Amino acid sequence: MTARQLTVGLIGAGRIGRLHAHHLTMRLPRACLLAVADARAEAAESCARECNIPRFCSDYREILADPQIEAVLICSPTSTHAQLIEEAARSGKHIFCEKPLALDLETIDRALATVEQAGVKLQTGFNRRFDVHFRRVRQAVEQGEIGLPLMLHITSRDPAPPPAAYLRASGGLFLDMTIHDFDTARFLLASEVEEVFALAHALNEPDIALAGDVAHAAVMLRFASGAIATISNSRRASYGYDQRVELFGSEGCIAIDNAYPNTAVVSDRHGVRRDLPLHFFMERYAESFAAELQAFVEAILDDRPVPVSGYDGRAPVAIALAAQRSLQEHRPVSLREVA
Amino acid sequence: MTARQLTVGLIGAGRIGRLHAHHLTMRLPRACLLAVADARAEAAESCARECNIPRFCSDYREILADPQIEAVLICSPTSTHAQLIEEAARSGKHIFCEKPLALDLETIDRALATVEQAGVKLQTGFNRRFDVHFRRVRQAVEQGEIGLPLMLHITSRDPAPPPAAYLRASGGLFLDMTIHDFDTARFLLASEVEEVFALAHALNEPDIALAGDVAHAAVMLRFASGAIATISNSRRASYGYDQRVELFGSEGCIAIDNAYPNTAVVSDRHGVRRDLPLHFFMERYAESFAAELQAFVEAILDDRPVPVSGYDGRAPVAIALAAQRSLQEHRPVSLREVA
Amino acid sequence: MTARQLTVGLIGAGRIGRLHAHHLTMRLPRACLLAVADARAEAAESCARECNIPRFCSDYREILADPQIEAVLICSPTSTHAQLIEEAARSGKHIFCEKPLALDLETIDRALATVEQAGVKLQTGFNRRFDVHFRRVRQAVEQGEIGLPLMLHITSRDPAPPPAAYLRASGGLFLDMTIHDFDTARFLLASEVEEVFALAHALNEPDIALAGDVAHAAVMLRFASGAIATISNSRRASYGYDQRVELFGSEGCIAIDNAYPNTAVVSDRHGVRRDLPLHFFMERYAESFAAELQAFVEAILDDRPVPVSGYDGRAPVAIALAAQRSLQEHRPVSLREVA
Amino acid sequence: MTARQLTVGLIGAGRIGRLHAHHLTMRLPRACLLAVADARAEAAESCARECNIPRFCSDYREILADPQIEAVLICSPTSTHAQLIEEAARSGKHIFCEKPLALDLETIDRALATVEQAGVKLQTGFNRRFDVHFRRVRQAVEQGEIGLPLMLHITSRDPAPPPAAYLRASGGLFLDMTIHDFDTARFLLASEVEEVFALAHALNEPDIALAGDVAHAAVMLRFASGAIATISNSRRASYGYDQRVELFGSEGCIAIDNAYPNTAVVSDRHGVRRDLPLHFFMERYAESFAAELQAFVEAILDDRPVPVSGYDGRAPVAIALAAQRSLQEHRPVSLREVA
Repeated sequence: MTARQLTVGLIGAGRIGRLHAHHLTMRLPRACLLAVADARAEAAESCARECNIPRFCSDYREILADPQIEAVLICSPTSTHAQLIEEAARSGKHIFCEKPLALDLETIDRALATVEQAGVKLQTGFNRRFDVHFRRVRQAVEQGEIGLPLMLHITSRDPAPPPAAYLRASGGLFLDMTIHDFDTARFLLASEVEEVFALAHALNEPDIALAGDVAHAAVMLRFASGAIATISNSRRASYGYDQRVELFGSEGCIAIDNAYPNTAVVSDRHGVRRDLPLHFFMERYAESFAAELQAFVEAILDDRPVPVSGYDGRAPVAIALAAQRSLQEHRPVSLREVA
Repeated sequence: MTARQLTVGLIGAGRIGRLHAHHLTMRLPRACLLAVADARAEAAESCARECNIPRFCSDYREILADPQIEAVLICSPTSTHAQLIEEAARSGKHIFCEKPLALDLETIDRALATVEQAGVKLQTGFNRRFDVHFRRVRQAVEQGEIGLPLMLHITSRDPAPPPAAYLRASGGLFLDMTIHDFDTARFLLASEVEEVFALAHALNEPDIALAGDVAHAAVMLRFASGAIATISNSRRASYGYDQRVELFGSEGCIAIDNAYPNTAVVSDRHGVRRDLPLHFFMERYAESFAAELQAFVEAILDDRPVPVSGYDGRAPVAIALAAQRSLQEHRPVSLREVA
Repeated sequence: MTARQLTVGLIGAGRIGRLHAHHLTMRLPRACLLAVADARAEAAESCARECNIPRFCSDYREILADPQIEAVLICSPTSTHAQLIEEAARSGKHIFCEKPLALDLETIDRALATVEQAGVKLQTGFNRRFDVHFRRVRQAVEQGEIGLPLMLHITSRDPAPPPAAYLRASGGLFLDMTIHDFDTARFLLASEVEEVFALAHALNEPDIALAGDVAHAAVMLRFASGAIATISNSRRASYGYDQRVELFGSEGCIAIDNAYPNTAVVSDRHGVRRDLPLHFFMERYAESFAAELQAFVEAILDDRPVPVSGYDGRAPVAIALAAQRSLQEHRPVSLREVA
Repeated sequence: MTARQLTVGLIGAGRIGRLHAHHLTMRLPRACLLAVADARAEAAESCARECNIPRFCSDYREILADPQIEAVLICSPTSTHAQLIEEAARSGKHIFCEKPLALDLETIDRALATVEQAGVKLQTGFNRRFDVHFRRVRQAVEQGEIGLPLMLHITSRDPAPPPAAYLRASGGLFLDMTIHDFDTARFLLASEVEEVFALAHALNEPDIALAGDVAHAAVMLRFASGAIATISNSRRASYGYDQRVELFGSEGCIAIDNAYPNTAVVSDRHGVRRDLPLHFFMERYAESFAAELQAFVEAILDDRPVPVSGYDGRAPVAIALAAQRSLQEHRPVSLREVA
């Protein structure tokens, strides 16, 4: 392999950082992961050992200062994303940043401006765009298979809520969880959201209510194209991770189902049944995480636009903020009010 | 069969009237259809001949005046329903009336008051409550199979819009079509709607727009129980009649699919496919029409409450009116505002 | 209804006889059931009362002697079928006879010869040919949807074995149960069986073994067309009635699934499941029983060939006898050896 | 990673060899692929370059002579398998060999004897045993989920036949293709085949007939346990790779479906359809190839029995030979006749 490789540094060696490290080293021959940084030095070290990364450090500035490194992956806590994006951009690094870029638009806008001034590329980590099932829906839209998109319905439920501490720092359901669905809706409809209406509650979930959040939500989106989307969220689906989409168009309808660990169907005297769907995002979207990194690596090496831009990272935050305001003020909220 | 039979008169010999006549004579041994009336005498006559009904007439008052007839089926145009209910009630007849009872609540309330004074029974023709698939969902709720109901999603699409003339007299999408879904939501959640928000458009449907109606709608309902329902409607689904429901609860989720004419799956070089679902309501809900009549006949013969009351006929009209106002005023509308 | 009706007499008021009586009176306006006979007079009487049949008797000869009656349905025990066919034919009655016509070919051939001499019509009661699912497979063959039929697989399992007494008189699994599948194979492939090979056992079924029968069987058929069919039978499927077919052709494959009482799918923490299929033949094939009678009535009234001939009643018996011999002699058996 | 790694040499750099090389280097951290040999030196070289293998050669004896190498993968043409197994065993290498071990039992027995004398491990490349879907069926058997296994049906069809040259050297359908199904049947039923009956033809496939082979086959197997298996094969399924299994037991039935590239279902005016299943074995069984190698590596490093033994490589060849004889002599053939 004498082809040029993209040299990469990883900032943040938590669960998602390690997953990216694994993909970079095992599955992406066009990338070379040179260093990993984590404020917890032992996390950086164990990640480096596991994935054969040559260097590790506790200070991400070592990575930003390394002239050998062309691109960084920002996988640190959300509250640090924007600051790191700005510093990385000023260091001339291309950037892949996990979602959300930040929990407010001002911070995001400052970061995006810095990126633009620096002339580096920034890709936002909306991995579901790289899932084969979601891509198949997008393909149907692009190829006119279902005509003009009219109504979209997204079902998005987690198997169980995160711990209360996580909940409190998460920015709330819309910024933490629905943000993926807002991105999916924009991706599939290829149009911008103009208005949001949300209803939500914490029925049966006293801990979530105590944390000041909602557990189950329905959101309605009106798009510039005229299309309408409905989203059904829950923090707790007894049967596991529920990730489905149905897009109704003037010439047809396309629906994707959950992904299952196997196709087996068992019939016995109790009924006809199959095993539960893949349990959570690490299993359900495993391949999409590798694919989004591959797209990032190729966009930089081949100098093409990244497939999920910084603006794509900003838009769902704006929608989430509008959804929050809709819930609080109990009325439809125009995106112009928040953006 | 020497058991007592319910004697019935039919008012209105259109499509749905004839279907009921067929069921009464062929499938309901406990009922005896004695006469059919239709303003178009030839319609009454051909219906009588087809179904071996002893008498026919063009004036429904002959039926109301017949002391032999205990119950009437009102299958005439919607605009006549309330007036006929009142006259029938005053004649001491039990009443089965097609939906909607009327297009405004004042008219309905007057009719219901007359029914109450007369002490007769009134059943509203929401046939979907008798469909085996919908009943299975209701059974899941009643037996606690899915825990506490939290989120309901109803997909309800027709294969093609009715003619413009019909559209103009229909009262609009919400009163004409969604009304069934409002009833389904009340039936499945066993709770009352408190608030409605609606978005709708006529994308790609200039004729419907010209008729002053919308073609595609999304409606969100908040129930007294706290549960939220979303409804996705369309006047035109290229693939035919689309009637599905998914109810998500704290312990599980139950979903019903469309009904198909056969179970055959064909795999060939183009893909893996099956035939289209049953085309429209006459095919899809065929059995439910017989079952609702049977329930009506038994409720009267056995002197039990009818399974779909006059109030059940009123409530969805109120919801539809709230949905209309929500669409016009672009805000969530409380049921208290219209009811 | 002034159109001419076919006058019918029913011989045998057991379970299947009553079903036919019900269909004739309730669903077939072109037929008129005038009398029912059963050696047990009280069975004839209760059937007559239930279905409003004008006359009943304990001696079927009263029916055969009635010049008003044009056609008879033979629903008596198998051992009487051939004798009744002959007598009915000699009385000039058209005949619908339940399967099997007899348990040996000599008896069948004598009956068919009498029918031919009498110039009456004889239809054999292979109801599955009228099931919408099986018809869809046949349609695929006729319209070339799957190209040249190459391999057929039939799954046919009962929910539980019949009582030992029934088993002993049944003629054995192949004549009693597989006979339907032999007919299905002939119907779907539109070709004649040339050779049969069978393996079978009574694993886990000591009562069936004691009755001298097998409980589970696999049969392979070679057709004149070259196509090969495999059949998988069982007397006891824990999950109920299992009736599926898959036909593989040069251009595609068509498969039909079991029929279910509803389309509901429940997801909970234990898995994703649906209710059991329709329990047994009275539920699964309900419509096909009405359809086969309708076809019989129309064939006579319109003087067209019956859709399932006497020869179609003979052929599966020959195949069953070949299967029995194959099992006994443990070798493939040519139809020429038995027919 | 300081844990001990298994050092491996690869013999044969064709399609399957390259796949193994890829898995060894990218996905199996406990293995280290040191060298690749292929009679075509340029194939060995390109494989080494693609997968970063340190050494390549055209003479496999260099690999066998290398004391650093503990295990070899034999991925050369079938005709060389047995000879290579013997040489590798005598060189003290553990062996993973692609199926079939040879096309006759004498050759296999000699190879297995050599392996036994050498005390090395030999794993046969029946990858389907490592497929999650097949494993789920096996798990159902092991955990008693379906009770006593009674009837197995395997559907196994290729998208298109191999070239005529390949066909002629393949040993015929049973040794080339059905051999996988014979292994699957043994694996799932955990019992030995006692008897085989086969029917086959080359309808619609003149080229295959010319090559002296059959294109479509049905095979029936009787197992020592009493269970019966039927196999339905075809060299050409218009809809692609068809790999399904259904196992019927005394307490239930488990069925696995084909694997699809996505879960999308498109409904339009033509019908309800999904994309074709994964096209062929490289896609359908991709993960199983990695899993079988991992099991091999672990069995050696941890000194446990390999999961698919040399005997497991021999048994399906014996069944295939019996199937061939059954086809030729048109009778059921006992395994004792060939083994």
